[in-house]
Amino acid sequence: MNFVEKLLKAARTNKSLLCIGLDPDPQLMPAGVGIVEFNRAIIEATSDLVCAYKPNLAFYETLGAEGFDVLKDTIACIPESIPTIGDAKRGDIGNTARMYAKSLFEMFGFDAATVNPLMGFDSLEPFIEYRDRGVLILCRTSNPGSADLQDQLLSSGSMYELIAELARQWNKYGNIGLVVGATYPEEISRVRAICPDMPLLIPGVGAQSGDLASAVRYGVDAKGQKAIISSSRQVIYASKGKDFAEAAREAALKLRDEINRYLEDV
Amino acid sequence: MNFVEKLLKAARTNKSLLCIGLDPDPQLMPAGVGIVEFNRAIIEATSDLVCAYKPNLAFYETLGAEGFDVLKDTIACIPESIPTIGDAKRGDIGNTARMYAKSLFEMFGFDAATVNPLMGFDSLEPFIEYRDRGVLILCRTSNPGSADLQDQLLSSGSMYELIAELARQWNKYGNIGLVVGATYPEEISRVRAICPDMPLLIPGVGAQSGDLASAVRYGVDAKGQKAIISSSRQVIYASKGKDFAEAAREAALKLRDEINRYLEDV
Repeated sequence: MNFVEKLLKAARTNKSLLCIGLDPDPQLMPAGVGIVEFNRAIIEATSDLVCAYKPNLAFYETLGAEGFDVLKDTIACIPESIPTIGDAKRGDIGNTARMYAKSLFEMFGFDAATVNPLMGFDSLEPFIEYRDRGVLILCRTSNPGSADLQDQLLSSGSMYELIAELARQWNKYGNIGLVVGATYPEEISRVRAICPDMPLLIPGVGAQSGDLASAVRYGVDAKGQKAIISSSRQVIYASKGKDFAEAAREAALKLRDEINRYLEDV
Repeated sequence: MNFVEKLLKAARTNKSLLCIGLDPDPQLMPAGVGIVEFNRAIIEATSDLVCAYKPNLAFYETLGAEGFDVLKDTIACIPESIPTIGDAKRGDIGNTARMYAKSLFEMFGFDAATVNPLMGFDSLEPFIEYRDRGVLILCRTSNPGSADLQDQLLSSGSMYELIAELARQWNKYGNIGLVVGATYPEEISRVRAICPDMPLLIPGVGAQSGDLASAVRYGVDAKGQKAIISSSRQVIYASKGKDFAEAAREAALKLRDEINRYLEDV
């Protein structure tokens, strides 16, 4: 089963477009809880409520040598039926990109990875060649600074629209998706128009205050699918107490149901 | 001593603008030689010939948990007087970028790091805030696909020229530099005109067949400094035999001297 099939199946089974970002920050975590223990508890408490999990590599790299095993062990806690997205935002020349792709898809075994398109097609091709994995290309990111380059006007539209257009041309195996921040609903709508069938990873709801209703409305495809609405801090740090896993479940349930209500209005 | 001072000092001491990329690929390395052993031998054979070393993180990440220690041990082999550049090309939203910056500058202790500007200023700020470290922003990369986005025409010039312009505006602490591939000499010249004082990291000579003479001519500042001409495969894989370190030294010496000859013509 390839990434898109796995995503659709998990979304259907769990009636959910919610993706949880597993970004463990010891300063925000409950005291005395190890990172794998924390992630495992969050995963066990929410795995029937999500369509994907998305660990961000930065939070593991910063742990040093231990980080590799912590990430491996975290991935091992995720049920086989739920797709995993390695949020790494890598991008480098061909021979180097091959190393990154191998690391993410073979060593960690992610079902999908986020990549940065600034260096162009040949920097993404080694990822795309893994036909059963998803390649989620940064298009219009959720942060304020995204405007610095992504909003630049070209003769044919904005930079982010060109990225969406290029992604469509590069999508020969049907395994490409785009990352579009929930903080820019209008842009989600334009990207969805350019790429009607692609999965869109939409971070930025919750802590980054994206507009959830618009993210859902504009993010889904014509069948009300293929939007991956990602939240991290709002869910995993819902409580800093011993009840952190239950609190995460409550937050995830609330978000999933809210998304589903907006979905009815689409 | 900050990155730029350290770079200038090493370049002066070793009469060299050459940077060696430490990108260990077991398939290209001599058989039976461990990676740290390989890197150590290369470093010992060349440390009087370079202005910097540049390990690319991908080649270490792909080793798994061991990769962290291999990179740490490699950095420990580099003499304190030679600046280290972590070629990681990271770029992510603020709280995540902080993790990446911490990992590169604190855990690995790199003097400088390469970063990807697609996500804009706030994604680079956590790096720039380390005022004594160098932040080398991808501007016009050496690969063919770089044209896909970096050459796009805006009202005021190309995307890569805008990146150079923004880098100049963001350079409040004087610790920003740019990455400009040796494969595009005309672009090096334009970037140098926009940022007359910035260090330029220029990869792509050697295996990627960039034009060395032009890279030197257009890359240096008015004083004939601040170009970091980087080569990896051409130097470190000069021989696959037991003489690999001596062969690397010969290749590095040849390149350094060639650069210095071109420098006389500037």
